[in-house]
Amino acid sequence: MRDFLSDFAAMSAFGATARGGLDRIAGTTAHRDVRRWLAGILSFEGFEVTTDAAGNMFGLLRVAGDAPFVLFGSHLDSQPKGGRYDGSYGVLAAAHAAIAAAERHREGAGEPRYNIAVVDWFNEEGARFKPSMMGSGVFTGKLDLDTVLHTTDRFGVSVADALDHMGVRGTFALGEVAAYAEIHIEQGRSLEERGITIGVVEATWSAHKYDVLVRGDQSHTGATRMADRRDAVLGAAHLITRVRELCDLFPVEALHTSVGELDAFPNSPVTVAGEVRMLVDLRAPHDATLAEAGEHLRAAIADSAAASNTEIEILSVTTWNSGPFLEKGIAVAEEAAASAGHASVRVLTLAGHDATNVKDIAPTVLVFVPSVEGITHNEAEFTRDDDALAGVEVFTRVVELLAAGALDETP
Amino acid sequence: MRDFLSDFAAMSAFGATARGGLDRIAGTTAHRDVRRWLAGILSFEGFEVTTDAAGNMFGLLRVAGDAPFVLFGSHLDSQPKGGRYDGSYGVLAAAHAAIAAAERHREGAGEPRYNIAVVDWFNEEGARFKPSMMGSGVFTGKLDLDTVLHTTDRFGVSVADALDHMGVRGTFALGEVAAYAEIHIEQGRSLEERGITIGVVEATWSAHKYDVLVRGDQSHTGATRMADRRDAVLGAAHLITRVRELCDLFPVEALHTSVGELDAFPNSPVTVAGEVRMLVDLRAPHDATLAEAGEHLRAAIADSAAASNTEIEILSVTTWNSGPFLEKGIAVAEEAAASAGHASVRVLTLAGHDATNVKDIAPTVLVFVPSVEGITHNEAEFTRDDDALAGVEVFTRVVELLAAGALDETP
Repeated sequence: MRDFLSDFAAMSAFGATARGGLDRIAGTTAHRDVRRWLAGILSFEGFEVTTDAAGNMFGLLRVAGDAPFVLFGSHLDSQPKGGRYDGSYGVLAAAHAAIAAAERHREGAGEPRYNIAVVDWFNEEGARFKPSMMGSGVFTGKLDLDTVLHTTDRFGVSVADALDHMGVRGTFALGEVAAYAEIHIEQGRSLEERGITIGVVEATWSAHKYDVLVRGDQSHTGATRMADRRDAVLGAAHLITRVRELCDLFPVEALHTSVGELDAFPNSPVTVAGEVRMLVDLRAPHDATLAEAGEHLRAAIADSAAASNTEIEILSVTTWNSGPFLEKGIAVAEEAAASAGHASVRVLTLAGHDATNVKDIAPTVLVFVPSVEGITHNEAEFTRDDDALAGVEVFTRVVELLAAGALDETP
Repeated sequence: MRDFLSDFAAMSAFGATARGGLDRIAGTTAHRDVRRWLAGILSFEGFEVTTDAAGNMFGLLRVAGDAPFVLFGSHLDSQPKGGRYDGSYGVLAAAHAAIAAAERHREGAGEPRYNIAVVDWFNEEGARFKPSMMGSGVFTGKLDLDTVLHTTDRFGVSVADALDHMGVRGTFALGEVAAYAEIHIEQGRSLEERGITIGVVEATWSAHKYDVLVRGDQSHTGATRMADRRDAVLGAAHLITRVRELCDLFPVEALHTSVGELDAFPNSPVTVAGEVRMLVDLRAPHDATLAEAGEHLRAAIADSAAASNTEIEILSVTTWNSGPFLEKGIAVAEEAAASAGHASVRVLTLAGHDATNVKDIAPTVLVFVPSVEGITHNEAEFTRDDDALAGVEVFTRVVELLAAGALDETP
C-alpha cells in the first residue's frame, strides 16, 4: 500500500524552493514534470491517463462499465513562491483515495455505481495566465476554449503553446460528471482556532475582480515640471490606499480588498509612467456587500484620477458570486468524517476553488483540513501530518460514498 | 554634402514606433542596427569606427597627428516608447559637425590642434540596465567596468552578453580627452517660452536616487484576514503618495519627485505581494534641498511602513550632485551661437546627461535646442526642423573652436 506522506514529500520536490515552498506555475517544466510523476503512479495502479483540450489531466479507473464518472481532484500548479499544500495536497489525496477504491474493487469488495476519475485542473492559480481556475472554467463551460488557448502570459506565450510544451493538449472529453469532490487546505484559521480537523464547505464567498487601467502621460522624472505631470503610478498609489480603506466602511472581516498585481509602463527609473494596469480584488460572504463596495470603488477611482491628473478606467469585472454547496453533499462529507472518527464543522471558503466552478454543473463536495495560522500563497504554508492523513482517510470515504451513488437523485 | 534632416529621418526608422516615437533600448537589435547605420556613414566619411570595453562606439578622425582627441556625442539608445530626439539628435549633430570639420580639413582649411572623435555612449537611459549614463560612467571612472559588465536586466541578461550580441565589446581606449561637447534637446520649456533657439547649460540639477525595498508577507488576497496582512503593495502605495507630497514642502519647482519604476513580487492577481522594489527619484537645483528632502523621505518611509505593517528599507542611494559647467566653455558656446547668428541664453539642465559625467574629467560644453512643450521620454517628443538645423550650425562652430584649442589652458 502506498504511503501518503512519502508520496507527498516526493511530489513536493517538483518546483521546490529553497525555503520549503513551491514555485510550480502552470505550464512550466516543473508542472510538466510533477504531472509525469503522478501519471506514472496512476498508470502503475491501473488508471488510464489522458488530457482534454484545456490541458486538464485525468486518471481514469473503469470499474462500472459504461456508467458516467465521479470525479475527484484539485490542482498541481502553485503561486510563485507558493506553498506545497495548496491544490497539490488535494490532487494527491484524490489519487490515494481512488487507488484505495481500485484496490477494494480488485479484491471484489463494494459495487461502485460509477467509474472513478482523478483530475489535475490546469492553471487554477492564474499566476501566469488569467483568469484563475482556467481548466475547470473551460470544463464547466464558463470559459471559451478558443479564447483560453489564445490567452498569453506577459512574455507573449499562449496557453496553447504552454500546453504543447508540456505535451498535454489532448482530445479527451470526460462527458457527464455524476459527482465531484475536492479536498483542500483551509487557507484560513477557523479550523485551527476551533481545534477541528475536518471542515465541510457550505458556501463560498463572492469575488469581484476589477481589471483597472490608469492612463497618464509618459514624461521625464527629472525634467518635467511637477504641475505638468500626469503620473499613472501616482494614480495607482492613490487608488491602492483607497482600496484598502474600503474595508473600513464595513464590519470587521465583512469585506476583503487587495491589489496584488500591478504593472507600470514603461517601468523605467527615469520616466514618469504613462500607464499602470492593476487588478483590484474584492471578496465578501454576501453579494450585496460587493455591490455596495463596488459603488465605493467607483468613487475612489474618480477621486484617485482627480488627485493624480490621470484617467482611470475599469476595463472589465470578473465576478464569482457566492453560492451554497449542495446540502446532500455536506451531509455525505459529515457522514464520512464521522465514520472515520474525526470531528467536522461547516465552514465558508473565502478563496475560490475548482470545486466552486464544478458545483454549478454537478453535485459537489468540498472538504477542508486545517492550515497552520492560515498562512497560504507563501512558502511557509503548512498542514500538520496528522491533519493531512485524517483528510485522506475522510476523503477516501467520500470517494467510496460518491462512487456508490450517494449523491444520486434517487440513491 | 550630407543633409541633416534626411539623415535624421533615416536614423529614426531604427526602433521606430507606430506613433512616431522610438523604442530603441540599449543593447537591443534596434540599437545594434542604428549603430551599424551610423558606422557606415562615418566610415564612408573617412572615420575609423571602434568600440571600447564598455560598449561606447567611437568614430575617429585623425587630423592632428598624435595629439589627443576632442570628443563630441550623446546616446542613440531611447526609453521604451521614448522620443526620436533625446540623445539621437546629439549623436547625429556631432557626426555632421565632425564630417564638416573633416571636409574643411580635406580642403586644407583651418589647422586643428586636436584629433576629432564622435561618440555614442552606451546605455545613457538606464531603462534596461541600471544605472543610467552607464557608458560615460565607466569612461570617466565613476563606474567599475567589471561591475557594469556583470549587471543584468530583469530577465538575467548581462551587459557583457548584450554587448556581445551587438558585437560591440571592444578594447579601444581613447586616452586623454582635450575637450567634450554635447548638444541635446532641452526636455523642458524654458527656451520655447522665451523664444530663444540656443541654450547654454551653466549648471546641472542634483539627483538623488533611492533604491527602496518594501518587505511584507506573501499571502492570499481572498483568504487572509485583513488584520493579518503585511501588504508590500500597500506599503509602496503609501510611500508613493508621500513622495509626491514632498514637493509641497518646498517652493514651486524647487524639488521634483517621482517613482517611475516599481516591481511587485510575486505580482499575481490572487496573492498579497510579499515584496515591492521601487526607485524614488528626487531632483533639485541645490544639494541642500535634496539633503532636506532626504530627511523628509526617511520620515515618510517610517510612516508608510507603519501604515501598512511592512518594513521599508533603503537599499542604496545614488547621487549626482549639482555642479557648474566651465565658464570658458559657456563663453565658447555663446560665441558659436552669436557667430552663427542665433540668440542664446544660459539655462540649467534638470535631466542628467553624459556631459554631466564627462565634465568632471574634461573641459565640457553642453548646448540645448528647444523641445516643444518640454515633452520628453514620450513618443510625442518634438523639436522643430529650424531649431534642429540651427543647433547643428552652432554645434559645428563649437566643434571647430574646440578642435582649434579654444578650451586649452593656454590657448
